[in-house]
Amino acid sequence: MYLAKVYVTPRPTVNDPQGLTIKGGLEMLGFENVKSVRFGKYLEIRIDHRDRAQAEQQVREMCRQLLANPVIEDFRFDLEEIEP
Amino acid sequence: MYLAKVYVTPRPTVNDPQGLTIKGGLEMLGFENVKSVRFGKYLEIRIDHRDRAQAEQQVREMCRQLLANPVIEDFRFDLEEIEP
Repeated sequence: MYLAKVYVTPRPTVNDPQGLTIKGGLEMLGFENVKSVRFGKYLEIRIDHRDRAQAEQQVREMCRQLLANPVIEDFRFDLEEIEP
Repeated sequence: MYLAKVYVTPRPTVNDPQGLTIKGGLEMLGFENVKSVRFGKYLEIRIDHRDRAQAEQQVREMCRQLLANPVIEDFRFDLEEIEP
């Protein structure tokens, strides 16, 4: 069994309205040292696989097909073996 | 300058409808080895602070006040020093 921790972030050149909104909210609360906020998704996916390479391949496919929009988002992930 | 990487996740006992929906989507795409999906938020926040302890304290306050809903979400973060 593997646990994939997937991070999906807006590409550096892409506008990030959610991040900007949160930055504005933090400033209104008095956090004036905040220089930038980028807002992304974080997923924890448990996969029943014995083989690490296959699990990795599968998570990459999941990101490409469903979890990330490759036009505006980047993804990366870590894979760790866990007890079933 | 510090970069805070903030992870906000649904508490283990809390229902996670977004995670369930993504799990269903992955299964429909043929990823049948997926055992569970938990869906959270990931934020990258750049903070203009010299002092690490102060930056840490400030990020913790941001999470409590705005970024996480303590009733249904947990948060954690890493802090790394970056070039201004």
